[in-house]
Amino acid sequence: MMTGEQYRRSMQDGRQTYYQGKRIDDITSHPDLGRVVDLIAAGYDRWYRPGEDVRHPLMSPPRSPEEMRERIPIMETLDVLTESTYQSMGTLATAAGRLRDEHPQIADRILAYLDDARRRDIRITECITDSKGDRSRKPSAQDDPDQYVHVVGRSDGGVIIRGAKLHITGASFCHDMMVIPTKRMRPGEDEYSIACMVPVASPGVQIVNVGFVPRTGDPRDQPASWAKAMFDGFVIFNDVFVPNERVLLDGKPELAAVFAHSLGLWERLGGVTYMVDQADEVVGLAVLIAEANGLSKVSHVREKIDELAIHATMLRAGLEAAISNAHATSEGYCYPDELYTNAAKYQGATGYGTMIRHLLDIAGGSVFTVPAMADFDNPELGANLRKYMSTSNTIDGEYRARLFATIRNLTADEFGGWRLIAMLQSGGGLFAQRIVARAKYDFDAARRRALKAAGLGDHVPPSAV
Amino acid sequence: MMTGEQYRRSMQDGRQTYYQGKRIDDITSHPDLGRVVDLIAAGYDRWYRPGEDVRHPLMSPPRSPEEMRERIPIMETLDVLTESTYQSMGTLATAAGRLRDEHPQIADRILAYLDDARRRDIRITECITDSKGDRSRKPSAQDDPDQYVHVVGRSDGGVIIRGAKLHITGASFCHDMMVIPTKRMRPGEDEYSIACMVPVASPGVQIVNVGFVPRTGDPRDQPASWAKAMFDGFVIFNDVFVPNERVLLDGKPELAAVFAHSLGLWERLGGVTYMVDQADEVVGLAVLIAEANGLSKVSHVREKIDELAIHATMLRAGLEAAISNAHATSEGYCYPDELYTNAAKYQGATGYGTMIRHLLDIAGGSVFTVPAMADFDNPELGANLRKYMSTSNTIDGEYRARLFATIRNLTADEFGGWRLIAMLQSGGGLFAQRIVARAKYDFDAARRRALKAAGLGDHVPPSAV
Amino acid sequence: MMTGEQYRRSMQDGRQTYYQGKRIDDITSHPDLGRVVDLIAAGYDRWYRPGEDVRHPLMSPPRSPEEMRERIPIMETLDVLTESTYQSMGTLATAAGRLRDEHPQIADRILAYLDDARRRDIRITECITDSKGDRSRKPSAQDDPDQYVHVVGRSDGGVIIRGAKLHITGASFCHDMMVIPTKRMRPGEDEYSIACMVPVASPGVQIVNVGFVPRTGDPRDQPASWAKAMFDGFVIFNDVFVPNERVLLDGKPELAAVFAHSLGLWERLGGVTYMVDQADEVVGLAVLIAEANGLSKVSHVREKIDELAIHATMLRAGLEAAISNAHATSEGYCYPDELYTNAAKYQGATGYGTMIRHLLDIAGGSVFTVPAMADFDNPELGANLRKYMSTSNTIDGEYRARLFATIRNLTADEFGGWRLIAMLQSGGGLFAQRIVARAKYDFDAARRRALKAAGLGDHVPPSAV
Amino acid sequence: MMTGEQYRRSMQDGRQTYYQGKRIDDITSHPDLGRVVDLIAAGYDRWYRPGEDVRHPLMSPPRSPEEMRERIPIMETLDVLTESTYQSMGTLATAAGRLRDEHPQIADRILAYLDDARRRDIRITECITDSKGDRSRKPSAQDDPDQYVHVVGRSDGGVIIRGAKLHITGASFCHDMMVIPTKRMRPGEDEYSIACMVPVASPGVQIVNVGFVPRTGDPRDQPASWAKAMFDGFVIFNDVFVPNERVLLDGKPELAAVFAHSLGLWERLGGVTYMVDQADEVVGLAVLIAEANGLSKVSHVREKIDELAIHATMLRAGLEAAISNAHATSEGYCYPDELYTNAAKYQGATGYGTMIRHLLDIAGGSVFTVPAMADFDNPELGANLRKYMSTSNTIDGEYRARLFATIRNLTADEFGGWRLIAMLQSGGGLFAQRIVARAKYDFDAARRRALKAAGLGDHVPPSAV
Repeated sequence: MMTGEQYRRSMQDGRQTYYQGKRIDDITSHPDLGRVVDLIAAGYDRWYRPGEDVRHPLMSPPRSPEEMRERIPIMETLDVLTESTYQSMGTLATAAGRLRDEHPQIADRILAYLDDARRRDIRITECITDSKGDRSRKPSAQDDPDQYVHVVGRSDGGVIIRGAKLHITGASFCHDMMVIPTKRMRPGEDEYSIACMVPVASPGVQIVNVGFVPRTGDPRDQPASWAKAMFDGFVIFNDVFVPNERVLLDGKPELAAVFAHSLGLWERLGGVTYMVDQADEVVGLAVLIAEANGLSKVSHVREKIDELAIHATMLRAGLEAAISNAHATSEGYCYPDELYTNAAKYQGATGYGTMIRHLLDIAGGSVFTVPAMADFDNPELGANLRKYMSTSNTIDGEYRARLFATIRNLTADEFGGWRLIAMLQSGGGLFAQRIVARAKYDFDAARRRALKAAGLGDHVPPSAV
Repeated sequence: MMTGEQYRRSMQDGRQTYYQGKRIDDITSHPDLGRVVDLIAAGYDRWYRPGEDVRHPLMSPPRSPEEMRERIPIMETLDVLTESTYQSMGTLATAAGRLRDEHPQIADRILAYLDDARRRDIRITECITDSKGDRSRKPSAQDDPDQYVHVVGRSDGGVIIRGAKLHITGASFCHDMMVIPTKRMRPGEDEYSIACMVPVASPGVQIVNVGFVPRTGDPRDQPASWAKAMFDGFVIFNDVFVPNERVLLDGKPELAAVFAHSLGLWERLGGVTYMVDQADEVVGLAVLIAEANGLSKVSHVREKIDELAIHATMLRAGLEAAISNAHATSEGYCYPDELYTNAAKYQGATGYGTMIRHLLDIAGGSVFTVPAMADFDNPELGANLRKYMSTSNTIDGEYRARLFATIRNLTADEFGGWRLIAMLQSGGGLFAQRIVARAKYDFDAARRRALKAAGLGDHVPPSAV
Repeated sequence: MMTGEQYRRSMQDGRQTYYQGKRIDDITSHPDLGRVVDLIAAGYDRWYRPGEDVRHPLMSPPRSPEEMRERIPIMETLDVLTESTYQSMGTLATAAGRLRDEHPQIADRILAYLDDARRRDIRITECITDSKGDRSRKPSAQDDPDQYVHVVGRSDGGVIIRGAKLHITGASFCHDMMVIPTKRMRPGEDEYSIACMVPVASPGVQIVNVGFVPRTGDPRDQPASWAKAMFDGFVIFNDVFVPNERVLLDGKPELAAVFAHSLGLWERLGGVTYMVDQADEVVGLAVLIAEANGLSKVSHVREKIDELAIHATMLRAGLEAAISNAHATSEGYCYPDELYTNAAKYQGATGYGTMIRHLLDIAGGSVFTVPAMADFDNPELGANLRKYMSTSNTIDGEYRARLFATIRNLTADEFGGWRLIAMLQSGGGLFAQRIVARAKYDFDAARRRALKAAGLGDHVPPSAV
Repeated sequence: MMTGEQYRRSMQDGRQTYYQGKRIDDITSHPDLGRVVDLIAAGYDRWYRPGEDVRHPLMSPPRSPEEMRERIPIMETLDVLTESTYQSMGTLATAAGRLRDEHPQIADRILAYLDDARRRDIRITECITDSKGDRSRKPSAQDDPDQYVHVVGRSDGGVIIRGAKLHITGASFCHDMMVIPTKRMRPGEDEYSIACMVPVASPGVQIVNVGFVPRTGDPRDQPASWAKAMFDGFVIFNDVFVPNERVLLDGKPELAAVFAHSLGLWERLGGVTYMVDQADEVVGLAVLIAEANGLSKVSHVREKIDELAIHATMLRAGLEAAISNAHATSEGYCYPDELYTNAAKYQGATGYGTMIRHLLDIAGGSVFTVPAMADFDNPELGANLRKYMSTSNTIDGEYRARLFATIRNLTADEFGGWRLIAMLQSGGGLFAQRIVARAKYDFDAARRRALKAAGLGDHVPPSAV
């Protein structure tokens, strides 16, 4: 396994990465990007165990609902990139299983890669969303044929790819990118049916970093920005050469969706777990700030907290139902029930705004206007700020100010904005969640029940939805 | 066990029951009330097995989550009064267990009653909601002291009670009424702390029937009204004598809530199961009528159906989570988790209106204006109605008309109104659901999580909500 | 003008009308249909003034916003059929104005009919919604060509029409039906481009009545059902002959939409006025029942009432804005702004369910289980019911019971169902409201504003929505 | 009148102002605070006209609904501080009118101040919200008596005040602060009944600045942050001396609410106008980004845009109704109807989250991950970014990127957070809006209507809500 220090050095490999208009030669020493390197390195150190045969214990998917449930609190402690690595490895293992019978060579190549990646203890990110161009046209019918990553050349030892992938979590901070088709491909779209593992430092790979970092130098002002700093990558493939042993799929449109669908299974577990946790966190913040404001006995405040708690409970019910109705891949890996998972994600995403509104309504305007912690540290100001941010002898002014700052950070600055959008878009937007629900809900059973209610139990319904 | 015919005869016991302003001497022969007798009698015949020691197999609560889950489809087939009997017996068994240690005599009296009731195969209804008077005052502070059922006299052999109980399911159709305090009583409210099993035909008991019956003589017009016809009773106790062996609690305010709380456990299973089933039924009706209208490919119709399906799925997730996190009473009877159950009920009740709106929006105005089935049977009209209610060669006009009639019956006539109100009020209104959620949600864990997010993990929060 | 008695006699003209499967020879003497005749006759008597040249003062549209506003409280007092007559006459006057320049003969024929109709003081209903068949196909592409009313033959003196019109308000109770195309027709759909005034008693016209009547004989139980009883007609045209002087349009597809669009203008005024009034009524009921229940100081009850009041206020704001931004037809008739009107109707329809939920939540379960007024009149029961429906010395039990009955009638029986569906479907369903809003909202101004916000004020946006 | 340059110099008066923990000696030259000075100075230059008797034309409230309507587009162009000045002057003029009869000396002092302030063309901010301490206790019952600004000493020439005011718009950038009681005071709270005009540079005044400034140096990334940069002040009064001629109220609790109530009138016009404008802006952004994404024909996208347009229309209806039902103060100044205004604000605040969710759902994940404009300017990257952010030959990549950046700025960074909170909290939170609606809605008329519907028109309702 790798140590944090080894990870740092591995980032200094000439990768072509940009930030705010500038090429960054060494991300480890950059004031903003370096923060993310620090977080990931700390994660390496936390899990490091010496020995040749040691592997990261989480880099294999759970094999039972119980194991799935037990891992939830552990997954929360991982940094986002390590979670992406976990999901990528689960995706590859699942895809290998699905391809085993008909395409044993591909399955073997995937497993060989996977063994090596686990041995080297590298971090991998999922590279799936293409730039897409006009969403109403298919890949081969775009004005610009490069709007979906595709093969533009071949040589003895590999393929040459071109295109761009968007919203790539931690692209500049990982070792390999799992480049897979964003969706089902059709006959004739052979060149778009490409899946491969691309080292970040490959010539021709450009990454533009977009993300959030703390605005002030004090973690008390923005605790989440400090703890969860991360950059998404806008990844451009300028005719990038990929050697054959890293090419997992090439030119079989009928197999293009295997990877995305496998990924979907592992993404869902993370997505809904995260939502459920956040919902409970919002309840907790609402309770604390209500108490700090002296409002916890006020009826309309209590009711808003009740609604927050019911919301959190229903999301958790979705997770519980998804786990207790878990399914297994043919390789015996467990994944949560997709219908319950997606329904919970849909509800979490559609309800998020109202929950945040309740929290902000309870908290009041100081969420935005609370002074910086540096102001509290200023000897001319500190005593006054503590005095006037206190609400009674039992509520300390700085404690209350930090609650406001935390709520602002989680809901009303760049981190809050990122979370709002992530709630809505991760794993596909609301429409995508609906489509999955549509595909998995048992409409035939519902129709039979309705026919029975109408006294038409014997009627054969005319057609399927 | 009793046969349907024996049940009919048992109703002819001089009970003092009223309907639309008139005393009804024999409910079995009344055109409206008789329908309900028929439904219950049919249920008796369905479960009847001969033999001295035979007992109704459902009259004992489940003993494991698996048994709870297996019973769900069976429970649906019971008439409402038999379900109430089931809940009453579960309530009594649970209360006996709770009282066993401190009040063995009460526990014995309950169990003796229970054995006898099962042997006689009688039907029992829950009699809990008092008339209540001014909701802002306690029982002993009302302008009229009779607003909560209370003891107004005693004799050697029993007690005399006065008051009224409202919304009593099938009061006129059962044998015994389980009269229990509606809530916690306070010291000094001894006379209000009365629980007893009152035969319906006891002198002084008056019951006013309110409910719904089919408006037309054709079940195709109102299938639910026919299948589920039931009357609630407004039950008045005019100084009713109850013999001591039927008095379960008398004058111990500190025990008054034991019965209501035990009842709550068993009511919840029924309540959320019913909601989940109805939600799936609404999905099915929406799908069928969309198909029948030729609208099932229209985008906004599809989206509404998706939302209905997600709603139904989330309610089912609540039920699933409630069962897989079930608890057991000290006697080993299983009951669903209260937090998940109440959260699901709350969501079902608050979302019901929107779901019905989606269904009606998809169905269109013919839900209200579809002709009666008798019109279809009229030879001057039938062919024309079938012709113009048909939408294409594959959709039969009468089939489509029956779907409209079913939707009207479930959403837009007395039955629909009853269901709308039952969704909202059964087991207590929205406020009651919130109170239970408030009591069961783990706010301390939420606060700890929030403090951790604020970087205040070591902080001791000032007080509990 | 006509008296109520003259109206009654005018209904005895051999019209072929059906109810619950039976042909009704004389609607005036039928126990259910007769109620509606009574209501309309009473309206005739209320407005009757003797004299040859006297005309109903409301049978001409308003000519200024002020007149429009002043008429609102008067319109509320009209029965539904008279309101339909008002809208029909407004529609014809507007259509005549629009056709005047290009088709003076049609305009003349319309005005001649209108003069005569006003002189005879008849009642007219709008006959617009066809049976429609498969909604995804146009009139001429249906499996059955009769799914839209069309001309199937001609003679010297007129045309012969076939088809069915649905949801026709009071069809059996009016004199003439204004049969107009339901939508725009395309070239080649000449036979579907037919508008004509058809006497109800024309041979071949069959009407099936569907509606609601009070269930009990006591108006206190169902005050709205008594006051607003009405039947919709399912109207079938079995090769009905219409003489030329009553044919307003025949075979000009490009003019087919003129009538429907003119109707839309007049329907909207009625629709939004009705909604606004109902919203205030719901507020009032909520306040009264909260007081009667002793709940009016309870915080969550107050908040629900606040929300009801805000909802009612916003709908009224829509009406106010629609009137103060009124437009005029080329003939000088005023009609409310369509964008504000439709936005208000959309909000009223989507919010209706939540408002009713608030009302029912405040009222409690007695909305459904309140005994009949006949029970209160029964000397054995009355005192007891009054006692136990009372909440304190200041709230009379029968008064409170009548509030419950009124709420049930408005929300939870056939009348309530009719209103729920009418809120949603009158003037077209939610989708139709959205389409109008889409057509009238100034998207170009919104785009310019957005471009300015983006610092792209000079940018020419690529295309229009 | 003052020029921009004169304004700049007037800020260099030794005011004691802080930012991020540091005392700022000259705000005009500070990189962040200086931006705001620039914006305000530009506003001075825009309105400057030479001459002794010239006054800013907007510094007097409108005198008719027409004038109110005409000013709307002008008000939008003012910076936030100038708008606050406008509202402060309106407040003072109104308060003077209200106090004229009973307290002519106070009225005279107010008018004298007002004349001088207009002549000097100064900027004034409203200083109203106290730190408040425990919200459940009144000012004189706090653990710390300074939680509401109060008089702690007196001298011949004036009073000495202590306390803190929060959320003070542009406190560091104005000349005078209008310090007024935050609410009604009770007998015995004489020292808290203080209203006075305090120069920012008065000894003892400390201001902590909290706000947002653009994160990058490029207005294309954050156009709203650049155009609307502003800081709220946390204002501390450390025993500040105020001379008598600047004291407007001192020690008359019964008059304490006159100022806050007068302010409410003028705040509302600004509040609802801002909301309506923003709602249209959101529609425009949704339309533009849907077009840029190639999604504008997709049904669910169209429906979301329809809902945005209906939302914007209903808010505008609220504004229209508020203006056409405007009232006048006794001095003849017009102010919008409070019921319509508050109802619209309530709806705008509660619906804001859903509208933003629709916008973000249509826009997609690039709202967060769009590269910085500096990246587009980088010659190594620019062509690639333009290529892959383009969706077709007609949509330029940089244009589309700027739309994403604008949406991010308005919804998902500090500016977006500020706006979210401002929508909710400005003019008081949701509860405050409800209270005003409750006070202004005509509940008696609603009750009469409901009684009539119940057939109880003659009934005298028992009590008022």
